[in-house]
Amino acid sequence: LATRLPAVGTTVFTRMSALAAEHGAVNLGQGFPDFACEPKLVDMVSDAMRAGFNQYPMMTGAPVLRQAIAAKIAAHYGHQYDVNAEITVTAGATQALTTAILCAVHPGDEVIVLEPAYDSYLPAIELAGGVAVRVQMAVGEAGYSVPWGQVQAAVSGKTRMIVINTPHNPTGTVLRAADMQALADIVRGSNILILSDEVYEHMVYDGQRHESICRHPELAARSFVVSSFGKTYHVTGWKIGYVAAPAALMVEFRKVHQYNVFSINTPMQHGIASYMADPAPYQQLPAFYQRKRDIFRNGLQGSRFELLPADGTYFQCVRYGAISGMPEAEFAEWVTTEVKVAAIPVSAFYQQGKESGIVRFCFAKKDDTLALALERLAAI
Amino acid sequence: LATRLPAVGTTVFTRMSALAAEHGAVNLGQGFPDFACEPKLVDMVSDAMRAGFNQYPMMTGAPVLRQAIAAKIAAHYGHQYDVNAEITVTAGATQALTTAILCAVHPGDEVIVLEPAYDSYLPAIELAGGVAVRVQMAVGEAGYSVPWGQVQAAVSGKTRMIVINTPHNPTGTVLRAADMQALADIVRGSNILILSDEVYEHMVYDGQRHESICRHPELAARSFVVSSFGKTYHVTGWKIGYVAAPAALMVEFRKVHQYNVFSINTPMQHGIASYMADPAPYQQLPAFYQRKRDIFRNGLQGSRFELLPADGTYFQCVRYGAISGMPEAEFAEWVTTEVKVAAIPVSAFYQQGKESGIVRFCFAKKDDTLALALERLAAI
Ligand SMILES: CSCCC(=O)C(=O)O
Ligand SMILES: CSCCC(=O)C(=O)O
Repeated sequence: LATRLPAVGTTVFTRMSALAAEHGAVNLGQGFPDFACEPKLVDMVSDAMRAGFNQYPMMTGAPVLRQAIAAKIAAHYGHQYDVNAEITVTAGATQALTTAILCAVHPGDEVIVLEPAYDSYLPAIELAGGVAVRVQMAVGEAGYSVPWGQVQAAVSGKTRMIVINTPHNPTGTVLRAADMQALADIVRGSNILILSDEVYEHMVYDGQRHESICRHPELAARSFVVSSFGKTYHVTGWKIGYVAAPAALMVEFRKVHQYNVFSINTPMQHGIASYMADPAPYQQLPAFYQRKRDIFRNGLQGSRFELLPADGTYFQCVRYGAISGMPEAEFAEWVTTEVKVAAIPVSAFYQQGKESGIVRFCFAKKDDTLALALERLAAI
Repeated sequence: LATRLPAVGTTVFTRMSALAAEHGAVNLGQGFPDFACEPKLVDMVSDAMRAGFNQYPMMTGAPVLRQAIAAKIAAHYGHQYDVNAEITVTAGATQALTTAILCAVHPGDEVIVLEPAYDSYLPAIELAGGVAVRVQMAVGEAGYSVPWGQVQAAVSGKTRMIVINTPHNPTGTVLRAADMQALADIVRGSNILILSDEVYEHMVYDGQRHESICRHPELAARSFVVSSFGKTYHVTGWKIGYVAAPAALMVEFRKVHQYNVFSINTPMQHGIASYMADPAPYQQLPAFYQRKRDIFRNGLQGSRFELLPADGTYFQCVRYGAISGMPEAEFAEWVTTEVKVAAIPVSAFYQQGKESGIVRFCFAKKDDTLALALERLAAI
């Protein structure tokens, strides 16, 4: 069977998690919390099952959940999506991203992707028959930033879509209002669509604000905005996400969605909808994770790691040049197997494996877990 | 935005369910039970959530569930799939079917599909850039059958895959050993793959046996076999399915799966795995649904509907020629809005809407529901 995706292997997340388990390492590689979600959330899903919400939901998502999502977006970002025509519930953010690409990108269309890039974007573009045009983020003392001039230069008559991701995995970069302005200047007057991956939307620190596409009507009018509940509610394995988009785009999204998964787990949708009635989990999340970020950063002060800025997400990127000249993949293996703290090489987020001497740690862990990891990392 | 799927509209299931709700009709259209699953199954999912199974599972599926699936297949059909390399858990059967098509069908490849066909096959082939080659099932007094000679004639040098579905939705046809023999004769010596949709595998009546592809090693060696738990366990909204295939095919399936959904709801996987330890639900299902089928058929004896055979699935097809000469879609609307019993026109399962004067009723309903529907249908 000839392959449709020649470049695809096992994801770096799966490989590093397996390596961490094999070597008894503290797993700061793959991004997921090692603590429990609120018991109330579990109870709400159980209640939904007991109440009989176990048959096919609507293809577009349970109305109560779409309603709650639209209300949340309106409350946070001031944009009112139509509950029926502009919100669709998905099997996690990955399915939303891939479906958005499959529905919009025709064979030969170009899609601009910023590297380092989450690993699902390029295979989805390839599957759609599109051509990924990669632009590398700049990285300096002040961390990573988007070189908008280069994005502008990458636009051609074939550009169908630009993929952005804020807060950004793996770098933790949070786009600012000026970034959104630059993006708006690039796409104005064109037919270019935007796919905005905002799954870390509620993890932005130091009082900065998340520049959701939804805050920028000019951009929202041409965008698929993707988010999910896994990261926000500490249930990465529940795989419930959503996409918000103007009705004209959503019509096309749903044509693919309908035959990709048809619909999404009913009791999980109802349970999450009930849980969303309380805004506290969203409101408390920045402080909750900022504290963990600070514990992690403080623990590495004076170590041989150099900390990059970490404005959002639950990831911290570090330079390890003072420790070793190894390529990133090799260093990540070494720190996992020898130091017993798993990391992800940022090179895995570049199609051609660019070496920057930087690895990523996930700080979505219990304080005890962080303490153990820091003890090991600081001792290098 | 130019569409990727020009032919796609709202599915007939969504439309007829909406019409049924609007007119207060008994909904025998879309296929789902109106009764509850076993409370034990719900408890097992709740227990999994409480036990903390809420983070990313393995991309391929939770090992306990893959183990249980492999054991079930071995017990029922005598084929031992490798738990790690040959089973993948999916977000329902629809995602498994679409992913199998996306990973195997290259632009320009031909895929043979038997009509009437479940409505997701053709859009998935189109999305992959493939060409659907449609062969119509024969329909006579003895019901629907596969004209294997025509399937053979439809094979060309470009044929990449043949899609089969047994027990068959919407017709209830169950393939026999002779059918599998004919299929084997057609594909022997070729590179043609088989995609076998077996979601109604445990609903086969009158002591007949389900000819799973898994019973036929020669066919299994080139097949993706798809099933799910929604129909078998009365939880169509849970959206947990799976695909079994030889390792060489599964490698390609997983490349697409990994970037389509990455992984599947963790607590649902664990809950179902626990529930599978007891074979009773599988064993009791044929008798449970055969009884409902018989209630439904008996209720229509002496009515103006002519019953077609119903050897498997939870669907009963009927000819309504003695009542009306309307086209099927019109008759289905009439019976929904005027008689207040929703049906699905079989024409919706043909790309070009073939008219056979046949509609489909779903008998996966409480006895009371069936009694009410029968009272109305018999009074026509
Ligand atoms: C889907 S597994 C990867 C989890 C994740 O988003 C990350 O670690 O970057
Ligand atoms: C996914 S909704 C359709 C349910 C079904 O399989 C049917 O009614 O045929």
